[in-house]
Amino acid sequence: MFSTFGHLFRVTTWGESHGPALGCTVDGCPAGLPLDLDAVGVEMARRRPGQSKLVTPRKERDEVQVLSGLFEGRTTGTPISMVVWNGDVDSSKYEKWKQTYRPSHGDYTYEKKYGFRDWRGGGRASARETAARVAAGAVARQWLAHEFGVDVIAWVDAVAGMQAAVDSDAVSRQDVEAHPTRCPDPAVAETMAAAIQAARVDRDSLGGVVGCVARHVPAGWGEPVFAKAEALLALGMLSLPAAKGFESGSGFAGTLMRGSEHNDPFVLVDGEVQTTSNHSGGIQAGISNGMPITMRVAFKPVATLARPQRTVTSDGREVEMVMKGRHDPCVLPRAVPLVEAMTALVLADLALMQRRQG
Amino acid sequence: MFSTFGHLFRVTTWGESHGPALGCTVDGCPAGLPLDLDAVGVEMARRRPGQSKLVTPRKERDEVQVLSGLFEGRTTGTPISMVVWNGDVDSSKYEKWKQTYRPSHGDYTYEKKYGFRDWRGGGRASARETAARVAAGAVARQWLAHEFGVDVIAWVDAVAGMQAAVDSDAVSRQDVEAHPTRCPDPAVAETMAAAIQAARVDRDSLGGVVGCVARHVPAGWGEPVFAKAEALLALGMLSLPAAKGFESGSGFAGTLMRGSEHNDPFVLVDGEVQTTSNHSGGIQAGISNGMPITMRVAFKPVATLARPQRTVTSDGREVEMVMKGRHDPCVLPRAVPLVEAMTALVLADLALMQRRQG
Amino acid sequence: MFSTFGHLFRVTTWGESHGPALGCTVDGCPAGLPLDLDAVGVEMARRRPGQSKLVTPRKERDEVQVLSGLFEGRTTGTPISMVVWNGDVDSSKYEKWKQTYRPSHGDYTYEKKYGFRDWRGGGRASARETAARVAAGAVARQWLAHEFGVDVIAWVDAVAGMQAAVDSDAVSRQDVEAHPTRCPDPAVAETMAAAIQAARVDRDSLGGVVGCVARHVPAGWGEPVFAKAEALLALGMLSLPAAKGFESGSGFAGTLMRGSEHNDPFVLVDGEVQTTSNHSGGIQAGISNGMPITMRVAFKPVATLARPQRTVTSDGREVEMVMKGRHDPCVLPRAVPLVEAMTALVLADLALMQRRQG
Amino acid sequence: MFSTFGHLFRVTTWGESHGPALGCTVDGCPAGLPLDLDAVGVEMARRRPGQSKLVTPRKERDEVQVLSGLFEGRTTGTPISMVVWNGDVDSSKYEKWKQTYRPSHGDYTYEKKYGFRDWRGGGRASARETAARVAAGAVARQWLAHEFGVDVIAWVDAVAGMQAAVDSDAVSRQDVEAHPTRCPDPAVAETMAAAIQAARVDRDSLGGVVGCVARHVPAGWGEPVFAKAEALLALGMLSLPAAKGFESGSGFAGTLMRGSEHNDPFVLVDGEVQTTSNHSGGIQAGISNGMPITMRVAFKPVATLARPQRTVTSDGREVEMVMKGRHDPCVLPRAVPLVEAMTALVLADLALMQRRQG
Repeated sequence: MFSTFGHLFRVTTWGESHGPALGCTVDGCPAGLPLDLDAVGVEMARRRPGQSKLVTPRKERDEVQVLSGLFEGRTTGTPISMVVWNGDVDSSKYEKWKQTYRPSHGDYTYEKKYGFRDWRGGGRASARETAARVAAGAVARQWLAHEFGVDVIAWVDAVAGMQAAVDSDAVSRQDVEAHPTRCPDPAVAETMAAAIQAARVDRDSLGGVVGCVARHVPAGWGEPVFAKAEALLALGMLSLPAAKGFESGSGFAGTLMRGSEHNDPFVLVDGEVQTTSNHSGGIQAGISNGMPITMRVAFKPVATLARPQRTVTSDGREVEMVMKGRHDPCVLPRAVPLVEAMTALVLADLALMQRRQG
Repeated sequence: MFSTFGHLFRVTTWGESHGPALGCTVDGCPAGLPLDLDAVGVEMARRRPGQSKLVTPRKERDEVQVLSGLFEGRTTGTPISMVVWNGDVDSSKYEKWKQTYRPSHGDYTYEKKYGFRDWRGGGRASARETAARVAAGAVARQWLAHEFGVDVIAWVDAVAGMQAAVDSDAVSRQDVEAHPTRCPDPAVAETMAAAIQAARVDRDSLGGVVGCVARHVPAGWGEPVFAKAEALLALGMLSLPAAKGFESGSGFAGTLMRGSEHNDPFVLVDGEVQTTSNHSGGIQAGISNGMPITMRVAFKPVATLARPQRTVTSDGREVEMVMKGRHDPCVLPRAVPLVEAMTALVLADLALMQRRQG
Repeated sequence: MFSTFGHLFRVTTWGESHGPALGCTVDGCPAGLPLDLDAVGVEMARRRPGQSKLVTPRKERDEVQVLSGLFEGRTTGTPISMVVWNGDVDSSKYEKWKQTYRPSHGDYTYEKKYGFRDWRGGGRASARETAARVAAGAVARQWLAHEFGVDVIAWVDAVAGMQAAVDSDAVSRQDVEAHPTRCPDPAVAETMAAAIQAARVDRDSLGGVVGCVARHVPAGWGEPVFAKAEALLALGMLSLPAAKGFESGSGFAGTLMRGSEHNDPFVLVDGEVQTTSNHSGGIQAGISNGMPITMRVAFKPVATLARPQRTVTSDGREVEMVMKGRHDPCVLPRAVPLVEAMTALVLADLALMQRRQG
Repeated sequence: MFSTFGHLFRVTTWGESHGPALGCTVDGCPAGLPLDLDAVGVEMARRRPGQSKLVTPRKERDEVQVLSGLFEGRTTGTPISMVVWNGDVDSSKYEKWKQTYRPSHGDYTYEKKYGFRDWRGGGRASARETAARVAAGAVARQWLAHEFGVDVIAWVDAVAGMQAAVDSDAVSRQDVEAHPTRCPDPAVAETMAAAIQAARVDRDSLGGVVGCVARHVPAGWGEPVFAKAEALLALGMLSLPAAKGFESGSGFAGTLMRGSEHNDPFVLVDGEVQTTSNHSGGIQAGISNGMPITMRVAFKPVATLARPQRTVTSDGREVEMVMKGRHDPCVLPRAVPLVEAMTALVLADLALMQRRQG
């Protein structure tokens, strides 16, 4: 619990934004997986700020150092410890506001919870913690691909109400990476980019939705009744910073349908059971049915703005604050690897649970 | 994991739809709580089918028998075992279809997972399992009220797109119970009722959304970074049958706002820190901030229909099936106590986690 | 935690000595096991008081009622709920002493922990709770035998210093059951029986040691570094009432040997790796090596005596107490099925953990 | 599970003997503890090989680097990541034997479990992993002292049958550290030292017993029925390398007593409930009673010898092996800080569990 995610494929993350390092321990990855560290590095780079003019400019190198659990390039079955050094961080701009609760950040709630807080760069509540998740998720993703041929692809599905049209059966990593917004609908991607630039100029931020699909998941993954596939995916997604909503398959839109439309008819295709529609999003009664697993995750506009805001201080003053520096007007493109990482972690966990059946 | 929910306030449920009984064990409820068994019974009655002409007609008495953990009316700190006897169940109508995968039910996925399945009334995948959750949730709810004055209220917020207007700060249990739909907006409630009756006539089903608020939750509940309050609520809600979506605070609608609108300004009210808006839904960085905790849960139209449907059998035939008998065209009213139960279980768990801080 | 044992093969027990019932839920037993309920009944009978003049006379029928998780005689993969009704219990002899802390019982510690206690028959601290473990252990034992051919045999190895000579490679259930003491060394068994009768006359109690072997456990079970096979066995055994010691393989006696004597040389027998001695007790670095797993568990003389004892009361008086009624002068014979049950539960858990490796 | 110990005060360790580093993450330590890093260093030094001519000569510096969870010298409530760099390790002497199963090591069992193994210095099975436990235990120990005044002291109680006489009520850290054997009975300590030197000359190894006491533990710690204080202590101790036995309070010797001798009479001392004897070892029904918690842990003679030994190889040859290099003839002195660390981790965990009661 707390800083550990997963039951059998487990990751424990640690680290603060402005501490010396952050990292994670992956415990439970089966032995014998040839781990491609370059591929891990690619995922880290996708999450990293400063990839394009669209995203936050902090220069993070985010190289992953593996300290255990590998021998001659393969996982040994023992815990894989991964560290990312924070490099030089400058906490001085935070010092001025160390008594001030930034609106809609964790400043106030951490202080109520723990009695005091590490005010440097958001401390543990910083989105920087997710770098460790991406590293762990990259291991899970490789194991899923190696063992089962599962692939997981996420994309920016909407920004500020601009909705992309994406075919989840066909979308590829290449489609997603083709545009800095990570929206695989080129026309909408351009509109999104313009809106993001406008928000930057306004020193404001935009929210949106990330879509995700996991293909080639075998039927039978997911545990009744509390560790349902959808429930664990929801847990993982809502644990991401700024996430405020999750839907699986038809989701909220499915509430507008009648059962006779929503039910997915079973058919036989080359002797295999399939469904002709996929409103279930690949999950029925919490268990995968072999169809693509689909979901969407809502992210609010991030709380960090470069505009003046009204708030209070820990010593009981009402103040106006404005934190200098450049900001990231839209985290959606960088949320794409996070959604993929959490999806991979959940699926790897469910795969190991299903192995209990022998 | 699996059939256990919670970390410190834990419930393990067991039982199948047509077995002799179902029940749960609540482990971790602190000692000394005077348990009101009548109040538990009220919650059970709210979940029970056949409460009104709007809901499923199966006559379930659903009396809870407490077998342990109580002494002279108070909890002892040891596990509370609760049993609900299933009474006489008639599995004969299921026998005919025991080789047939009902569309969008768990028949196919359970069989892929376990190799075979209890086909009587849906077995473990039946929504009847939730009776055990309601019993456990009733204990959690009483403990939260007794210790902290927390109250949890859910309501039907939408059916088939008919959206109610509900003030989450003011809505009461009495408002919710005033109409068989459990929608506290009287005008919309009537429209919903008519739509549900029409769906019944069509032997079809409708989906919708349940809203929920938890008031008087102290600031500081919720655990970084994976056991965030929102994440555990999402886990609990997506573990409910037919749930396909969850949103906290502003949710999906919040993605349409700019950060400058979405951020909740802090102010001092009688020396207490509050926010002037509550787009965060009472949770910031995964931790409660003392404002009302708000959420919405999407439920698809239930899969059980009285209409002919296309499907396949376990021995590889494509067939049309129609299961005789009355059905429940809309589970939303009965989902209200389920959402409350899961909310109470999550909050009780978080309360105990926070006690670690001393 | 708390009232749940195991990670993947999990049992949650509940119930008090003088409540209406006690029981357990087994969650995680793989689907498809044909469960022999008569064999479960045999284990229950072995634990039951009043089997012979050597043991406690309380008449407990201890029939197990299975309420879920079985379909057509096989496990379904869902939780198996088992209940044992307590029948008519008479708490009146306890009422007189409800303010008195019985020496070396849980009366005082439960009251310090929870603020009050169920004083009827020891409440949750009663050894009667172990009936639920025996039921769960019987399921685990059947699964281990069915899947792997593992057999688990325990016996009374010593009473009050009278030490039996038992060949753990050859001892059979029949050998153990041949004498009411459950000591398979006939000469020592007779001496033990006489000592137990003498202790009964003295209204006193005797302690002793239970030995146990698990044969045909495949190599590879046990998890580095905290869920080592020995560590989980120790956890299980020390969770039994009156257990005060555990040793694996050579145990405390092994501390008298030199490493050159203690190390178990590897040899090839018909191409299979074996060891010529088994001081390791079948476990090396926490993982089974394919040799028989051996252990011993120390049980103190039970605290319930029919003699006057000095103690204090909850309202601060020093008193002498003597609790009327017959007592069980030596629980060792009845501890045999408990040690077997915990061993089976641990091994089933480890077997499922190892399945993660695929 | 696996590489995580504890429920609420949790430590996850990682690292191999000859990898770049090893370490741990402590999750759950309450916020606000002023952490004395020098005191952590003292514990690390006590575990370190090469402290005296009695112990293994590998030069390990074992400085702990704290990477997270501290702010201005105090714990923040978030995970504390600690790393110990391995420095330069020479794996060449192991390369020659990489196909050879060292007797009574984990070589064979790891290979059966995982399919292959890191043969450098024992990999994950090396006792070097315990350095991470000592670091974590040092945090737990400081928290226990700071919050409750608990102190934990272990000592070498026996080596190869030479039994010390130690008063667990009075023994101090200073007494233990006064002799390189860490045996606080000076006469026996000298005899032990001579025996250890003789074993070194013989290139052999000796086993023994570590005693431990935890004083000032409040009554009420320990959880019925599976997370009993004794059970968790047994789990922790049997997870230590080379540990083969555990006893609590009177332990195996207690099986020789009658109940009337063994029961600990309650008395009032200055209005406080105490017992006149402490055969229970401070724990009754699994819960602390306020008296000193006492235990003993048996360690076999370590498997690493400098003598020729008979064994087999992974490609099916029977061979004789002798591994060159100096060895540690008796790990008992270095096991002392390990037993203290595990005791502190268990007690911190139980303390947090008890806080649930409010």
